[in-house]
Amino acid sequence: MRAVVFEKFHTFPSLTEVEKPVPGAGEVLLKVAGSGACHSDVAIYNEFDEGAPGAQNPPFVLGHEVSGWVEEVGPGVEGFAQGEAHLVYGPIGCGHCKACSRGQDTYCENAATMPYLATGIGRDGGMAEYVVVPARNLVPLGDADPVDAAPLSDAALTPYHAIKNSLPNLSGGGRFALVIGLGGLGQIAVQILTALTGATVIATDMKEDAMRRAEANGAITVAGGEGQVERIREITGGRGVDAAFDFVGATPTIKTAQASMAQMGRLTVVGIAGGVTEWSFFATPYESTITNTYWGTIEELHEVVAMYRKGQIRPDVERYSLDEALEAYRKLESGQLSGRAVVVPHQS
Amino acid sequence: MRAVVFEKFHTFPSLTEVEKPVPGAGEVLLKVAGSGACHSDVAIYNEFDEGAPGAQNPPFVLGHEVSGWVEEVGPGVEGFAQGEAHLVYGPIGCGHCKACSRGQDTYCENAATMPYLATGIGRDGGMAEYVVVPARNLVPLGDADPVDAAPLSDAALTPYHAIKNSLPNLSGGGRFALVIGLGGLGQIAVQILTALTGATVIATDMKEDAMRRAEANGAITVAGGEGQVERIREITGGRGVDAAFDFVGATPTIKTAQASMAQMGRLTVVGIAGGVTEWSFFATPYESTITNTYWGTIEELHEVVAMYRKGQIRPDVERYSLDEALEAYRKLESGQLSGRAVVVPHQS
Amino acid sequence: MRAVVFEKFHTFPSLTEVEKPVPGAGEVLLKVAGSGACHSDVAIYNEFDEGAPGAQNPPFVLGHEVSGWVEEVGPGVEGFAQGEAHLVYGPIGCGHCKACSRGQDTYCENAATMPYLATGIGRDGGMAEYVVVPARNLVPLGDADPVDAAPLSDAALTPYHAIKNSLPNLSGGGRFALVIGLGGLGQIAVQILTALTGATVIATDMKEDAMRRAEANGAITVAGGEGQVERIREITGGRGVDAAFDFVGATPTIKTAQASMAQMGRLTVVGIAGGVTEWSFFATPYESTITNTYWGTIEELHEVVAMYRKGQIRPDVERYSLDEALEAYRKLESGQLSGRAVVVPHQS
Amino acid sequence: MRAVVFEKFHTFPSLTEVEKPVPGAGEVLLKVAGSGACHSDVAIYNEFDEGAPGAQNPPFVLGHEVSGWVEEVGPGVEGFAQGEAHLVYGPIGCGHCKACSRGQDTYCENAATMPYLATGIGRDGGMAEYVVVPARNLVPLGDADPVDAAPLSDAALTPYHAIKNSLPNLSGGGRFALVIGLGGLGQIAVQILTALTGATVIATDMKEDAMRRAEANGAITVAGGEGQVERIREITGGRGVDAAFDFVGATPTIKTAQASMAQMGRLTVVGIAGGVTEWSFFATPYESTITNTYWGTIEELHEVVAMYRKGQIRPDVERYSLDEALEAYRKLESGQLSGRAVVVPHQS
Repeated sequence: MRAVVFEKFHTFPSLTEVEKPVPGAGEVLLKVAGSGACHSDVAIYNEFDEGAPGAQNPPFVLGHEVSGWVEEVGPGVEGFAQGEAHLVYGPIGCGHCKACSRGQDTYCENAATMPYLATGIGRDGGMAEYVVVPARNLVPLGDADPVDAAPLSDAALTPYHAIKNSLPNLSGGGRFALVIGLGGLGQIAVQILTALTGATVIATDMKEDAMRRAEANGAITVAGGEGQVERIREITGGRGVDAAFDFVGATPTIKTAQASMAQMGRLTVVGIAGGVTEWSFFATPYESTITNTYWGTIEELHEVVAMYRKGQIRPDVERYSLDEALEAYRKLESGQLSGRAVVVPHQS
Repeated sequence: MRAVVFEKFHTFPSLTEVEKPVPGAGEVLLKVAGSGACHSDVAIYNEFDEGAPGAQNPPFVLGHEVSGWVEEVGPGVEGFAQGEAHLVYGPIGCGHCKACSRGQDTYCENAATMPYLATGIGRDGGMAEYVVVPARNLVPLGDADPVDAAPLSDAALTPYHAIKNSLPNLSGGGRFALVIGLGGLGQIAVQILTALTGATVIATDMKEDAMRRAEANGAITVAGGEGQVERIREITGGRGVDAAFDFVGATPTIKTAQASMAQMGRLTVVGIAGGVTEWSFFATPYESTITNTYWGTIEELHEVVAMYRKGQIRPDVERYSLDEALEAYRKLESGQLSGRAVVVPHQS
Repeated sequence: MRAVVFEKFHTFPSLTEVEKPVPGAGEVLLKVAGSGACHSDVAIYNEFDEGAPGAQNPPFVLGHEVSGWVEEVGPGVEGFAQGEAHLVYGPIGCGHCKACSRGQDTYCENAATMPYLATGIGRDGGMAEYVVVPARNLVPLGDADPVDAAPLSDAALTPYHAIKNSLPNLSGGGRFALVIGLGGLGQIAVQILTALTGATVIATDMKEDAMRRAEANGAITVAGGEGQVERIREITGGRGVDAAFDFVGATPTIKTAQASMAQMGRLTVVGIAGGVTEWSFFATPYESTITNTYWGTIEELHEVVAMYRKGQIRPDVERYSLDEALEAYRKLESGQLSGRAVVVPHQS
Repeated sequence: MRAVVFEKFHTFPSLTEVEKPVPGAGEVLLKVAGSGACHSDVAIYNEFDEGAPGAQNPPFVLGHEVSGWVEEVGPGVEGFAQGEAHLVYGPIGCGHCKACSRGQDTYCENAATMPYLATGIGRDGGMAEYVVVPARNLVPLGDADPVDAAPLSDAALTPYHAIKNSLPNLSGGGRFALVIGLGGLGQIAVQILTALTGATVIATDMKEDAMRRAEANGAITVAGGEGQVERIREITGGRGVDAAFDFVGATPTIKTAQASMAQMGRLTVVGIAGGVTEWSFFATPYESTITNTYWGTIEELHEVVAMYRKGQIRPDVERYSLDEALEAYRKLESGQLSGRAVVVPHQS
């Protein structure tokens, strides 16, 4: 079968012929419906040096945002019917530590000894005609469109998890949320916040069209630059925001969020731009917290799918055939994509 | 000044002349903006016998859903400007027990020794030109319309409190809520659920027009009668609802809600029709709870006002002058009101 | 190998020779360290009729409270070393629904189509020299005694789960908990409550010696009979208890608990004696809830093991060899056991 | 009457004759039972410049940790009997904002316009024979010793509030807590953590005798200096602590706590030494938070009193007569006190 393969560090991937995989014990073979191209893929093949922390050794098939139809099950797998559409929970932990036992493979206690991080990250992913994944990582899609669903497993699950941790802060009347960075994850964050809370959602980005899309998704937007924090505080009646989500994570965006917090607010840095900030008692509104987060849980992916099926999450997708997959990565690298590129290996 | 006075048990109230009240220590005199007529008032003057549990001895001015403008403050009161519009938190506890300390006067530990329950319930209320209330019971309305706001202090605070206790059950994608009884409180419950959660809101009532209004407020409706529980379960994919709110509280409505619950769901009986049901281990979906509730807290009334100011709560109000107040009560008794009757003592 | 086999409904089990099992995909073969005898076993072989709800068809090896040492792993299993001691999480769901994804196989959405409920309940259990269990159901015991640990997977996990759901009710100073029924689960409930909360633990049982043991575990005891509720309320200063756990579940015990609740308290019926009670608005302290529960999650079993290793949970165990296993069941049936009977197949 | 009066900035207080106060509207006159001397008092008279943020203008009577017996009530106050012992909740907000409505005067939204912060901080306090306080700030002590209770209103309420916010992090088996700084607040923190949670409590301080007292209160201690973080992590099995409380708040103590956190842990800086630290995504264990906090709520003081009455909080008190009050302050300044100095104006 054909697949997009990461073959060498610092090298653009190839579209090449590989063996069609066979499901092992506890695994399922999926005929791929859609596979999202993500900035992390570019990091995998362009940025990491061999042996660096987080680097995954080639070769493997890319694609960690995957959906597909059940084609075949491996030994010990029951309860799946051929042709059923499923979304793939990407992270794969040891499966038996405390974190994995609650479906949070992202925080697997044995991650250091695992040979890979996720489907498409160290282990063959979904940029191919077929993919093999653990049965417990499948979330049924029912009759929802599996192609548009593909990016949900990262671009929706990540903001969903961050927001779910902040829901106690946003539960009730008169709450305010701040979203910084309105790319794929940020736009879906606005959709999720608008659907799940009654909060006024304030959004900001450097790009004008991203701001317009956030407004269409229900946010109030605030431009960057001087006076930004003052304008955010003004919208909140001076009080500040109850939850902030920074999808950039650079020093200036973290500082903007910090300066915008209300007492007891929760600031979650999701973006991994590596910003560094200061923390001190007197510069912190009482009981306001700052934290980070990473991806989400299997159970939450079930809830993301429920929101997608209800129309509460509406991914913005551009479809590419498998022949066009490398072109999609080139556009992603050069910032020419407005939505998420999803590779569709099997045209109907 | 003129006021609607409950003068005798089992006797329709009078519109009569009384002394304009004077604010005591810690109290504020309000010029009344609006005063809602509530079914509880009818119970006060029509149903209770002297000395019965819950009976409040006459005479006193009715009206426990009250808004007004600050006219004068009593000794020890600071921080209020004349003319400011405020909404009145009705319940009045001892002010210094544990429950009162958190602003939940409804559960005052010294309630048994208090001479009254609330403004307009045992103590002079807002069906008058002026009313005196404790300063700590005032919630500022800002520039929002104080007349439409009057019913919020009961008709919105009660469902808000019930819903807030259930928000953990409704926090996340794929949740379902059930509202039984679509009078004033039930309609506002639908508005609050739609605003604060992403849940699918299922609503039911015996009256067709109430069902239509609930749909306009964002609910899916299910008619009563045979097969009702099955239809509710079908909407939820068989799983049942995560939170139910019964604003009737009769035996059949409680049983309908019980039969509709999902595992870990929360059923709150708000209505006081006095229904009785059975509870057993095997008839209860695992970890589904049943409980009751009563009114709300001062802090929650602040949040209700925030939702009202944002347009998330939209009370359905019919205005009456003080001259027409008794007519409003007669219509209320005979079921001729479609919205909440608010008496407006001072016509502008 | 030898095993205690449930061979026929309404028939006492046999100690007999069976095939040593072979671990399949995703499974692990354990050399059994300990296997607890539980009242549910008696129900399995003595009470159920074929085809009745909950009945599990024979033949299978009994024993759902199991610990053991890793002997061999099946295909697709990694991360286990031979000889490591583990405790077995009994329930086995489909492994890929939403409930199973969070390690709560007890509430598996596909339970109806599963051929068994748990290790030792429909599927071969631990009353044998060896047992095969899914790898994800193993919780490492480290250097703790695996024999005494065996009963934890039910007799500690069940109260732990019930208590964990009630911890928000018990978090803080001045709280009160009530434990009804001081058999194996109730005693461990007292230990857990004493360790994890600052609550005053009130305990009750019909047996004097059970009361004495509860006192040794840190509880205040209250005898049954007339005035029992009054005595419980007196201890709480009239307020009632913030959480109650009924390990009997008969009509009178449920009613005792109901009458003892404080406002906002949580009553959990754990025992399955099938009692039926009444629920009504006016007989319920405000916002007090009643619910049931069933067993626990894998993650919680990790936490139970942590408490056991710290000495916070101290199971009361009587050891039997495999030869004496049937005798242990006979004593269990006739009420001659004071602690949990644990069968130890391999004597060192 | 005699009182310890702060008369001038940067000036040691005087023991002098002042007018016995008269309770105004909503106020109660207490005969003082005990009044704790606190480091904040030293800051008030020694460190602040006039007009500096937080500075309170003299003259006023010191003493914000106060208990006493009801002597007389002001206009509008009911429900108190002469001679009843009460503990005083120090903070005094506007009484009618959202924060005050839930009894959290510390976060009063109108604090900037209030003439004082608390009883004894800007307003006459308890270092006197009598003191006047708002009725809603009183928490009944029942038959418990009011002298030892005096420090609870700060030295216990502050750690209690910080811990209560962290209880979700500490709820369950296998949790770890870290307490840095074992002065008055830190010791009580250890007592509260030991009573309310099952966590292993790790404590550290520069003073050996403080470490010994913490051990007597149930903590494991870890000395400072090189390898401290490694030793803390070792105790936790490498995982880190689920909640940390830094009662110093200097840069090194905050950094020690940061480096000791587990994933999802909560680090609360309570001490106001003004330390500054760095925060970055990659140096933070996933979802671990850092925050600050300030004092507590009236409701929590009720719970603190319940713990004191149960013997779960045991303040370490040295009693001084009013004549010796200035000597107590001198010892406090020079670090000669081992317990809390409580001034007892009325010797029995």
